[in-house]
Amino acid sequence: MTFTKNSRVLFNSVPTGYPVPGETTVYDSTQTIDLENVSLEGGILLKTLVLSVDPYFRVLMNGEGHPASFQIGKPLYGFGIAKVLRSENTGFAIGQHVFGYNLVHEEYSVVPDPTGLQIMDKVANLPWSVYLGPAGLPGQTAYIGWKEFANAKEGETVFVTTGAGMMVIQLAKQAGLKVIASAGSEEKVKFMKSIGADVAFNYKFTDTRGVLAKEGPIDIYWDNVGGDILDAALEFSAVQGRFLECGAISGYNTGHQPLKNFHLICDRSLHIHGVLMGHLPIAKYIGEFYATMLPKLASGEIKFREDVSHGLDKMGDVILAVQKGSNKAKAVVVVAED
Amino acid sequence: MTFTKNSRVLFNSVPTGYPVPGETTVYDSTQTIDLENVSLEGGILLKTLVLSVDPYFRVLMNGEGHPASFQIGKPLYGFGIAKVLRSENTGFAIGQHVFGYNLVHEEYSVVPDPTGLQIMDKVANLPWSVYLGPAGLPGQTAYIGWKEFANAKEGETVFVTTGAGMMVIQLAKQAGLKVIASAGSEEKVKFMKSIGADVAFNYKFTDTRGVLAKEGPIDIYWDNVGGDILDAALEFSAVQGRFLECGAISGYNTGHQPLKNFHLICDRSLHIHGVLMGHLPIAKYIGEFYATMLPKLASGEIKFREDVSHGLDKMGDVILAVQKGSNKAKAVVVVAED
Repeated sequence: MTFTKNSRVLFNSVPTGYPVPGETTVYDSTQTIDLENVSLEGGILLKTLVLSVDPYFRVLMNGEGHPASFQIGKPLYGFGIAKVLRSENTGFAIGQHVFGYNLVHEEYSVVPDPTGLQIMDKVANLPWSVYLGPAGLPGQTAYIGWKEFANAKEGETVFVTTGAGMMVIQLAKQAGLKVIASAGSEEKVKFMKSIGADVAFNYKFTDTRGVLAKEGPIDIYWDNVGGDILDAALEFSAVQGRFLECGAISGYNTGHQPLKNFHLICDRSLHIHGVLMGHLPIAKYIGEFYATMLPKLASGEIKFREDVSHGLDKMGDVILAVQKGSNKAKAVVVVAED
Repeated sequence: MTFTKNSRVLFNSVPTGYPVPGETTVYDSTQTIDLENVSLEGGILLKTLVLSVDPYFRVLMNGEGHPASFQIGKPLYGFGIAKVLRSENTGFAIGQHVFGYNLVHEEYSVVPDPTGLQIMDKVANLPWSVYLGPAGLPGQTAYIGWKEFANAKEGETVFVTTGAGMMVIQLAKQAGLKVIASAGSEEKVKFMKSIGADVAFNYKFTDTRGVLAKEGPIDIYWDNVGGDILDAALEFSAVQGRFLECGAISGYNTGHQPLKNFHLICDRSLHIHGVLMGHLPIAKYIGEFYATMLPKLASGEIKFREDVSHGLDKMGDVILAVQKGSNKAKAVVVVAED
């Protein structure tokens, strides 16, 4: 029997504000695994390649209260790509790659029931991480949410916040809309302009209300932040506007600020949709998504950026960066090479 | 030339809180009209029969800020039924009755361009006022909003607030839903139970959160009040719930209370729809509405109640009662007999 190190990232304590690396989450390198002999219980053994780090992690760190909450003393889990090392399940073969919504944050995982995993074929010139970014959670959420709820019409105006809106910006431009985009760094603003945003600004130095007063009203708001910017978007919304609520990171760590302009939903006949991957009609769109978007990503017609870190020991820092918005693009952690 | 008294109700000043009869609005009996000779400018002369008094009046009393705001020194206007006394328009004949969205609050009106008025045929045993209540603004809003946005499924639970939800309660019961209903008087609660509400309570004496915790979660919320009750409805909402925002009377007179639970829209993938008559797809539903609902109202299959006052001089008091919720049912003012 040969034991291999199987390091992992544990959820250690419920944070009161921002998650603290080494306290909220702990990197544990003491676990080992016997790759040859570990019991698979009829399932498969995975080698973790890449893990996605997303804003929603903070929502799962509040202890009880969410059905998918992280458990104290147990590893984190999330979107990821892994490789099949061994298999006792006829649906999975050694060497295949799988995408999972709940891959455990450890180097090697036994998955007794792999039915929720999707086998993935790699597109030649794209890294595996693309399945966690523009072709993964953020990309699919943007694509499906946009198709299902934006009801976009050529010539309308859309407002998009944060780097998570990169895909939305490109979908909106392809549909002939005017795009107003904001982010928290000059680098992100520059990238937003390079992919077609008509108006892009750094919300830390430019007043959002001033921009919306001049460039609005907005027919569609793709919201990743919540809070005061959401109030501003409501203030400058067009009658019968659509709001896609994809996140509220402004409140995840410091508490959600009460919303002042909610009554405008009624006064202006707005339509507000919570857009969460787990409740989107994935089956309705996933075929066309892969068929149309992967070639566009491979050809560069749809552009994307990644902020890649290496090693599970970086996970705590990357989680914090995503919460603070100091990540440069879609954050992924490469755990091992293919 | 014979001059006839043509009393009216003027908008006199912007209220700071609740509208004050005699101050916010003034009953003016000094105006006269020469019914035989007044110039119609190619239009029609109307005798006002019944006027509707609705919660949204308060929104139009804030001075500037709303495209349809009441004008200081000018009469109020709203939904109403009138009779044609004279006509220079081939589309309207003497003795016909019309429904208008913006009938002027005066006894007789000259309407030079009557194209927005609808000619109405009276259903035998129903009063004209039915076209202002269950077959008018509240009824049509309930019917069309429900059909378009509630996405109701048998066995689901709906929560309805205020007496304005009477039609919604009956539509929901016909669709096989469980109905939780709240109102501010025992009389309204009793009526809600009589038309099928499974759970009905007086929110002044029974804690709404306690009821929703026991009887929820709620799949659909039909909101006429906004404020804290809306926060409670969000708190006890089911995943992928639908909220129909039809009014926010809790904030019209005292300011809108900030909403605390907005982030749950994203967390639970809720769908929130502003439901305002002017933006509903009326043409899509109005035919089936009149065809199915008028016979049901006439036969008593769909029940309704009215709170009828007589005389334009009562308008100020009725407006205040509607804002305070002390009206007993749908408020109408009968200006003249047919």
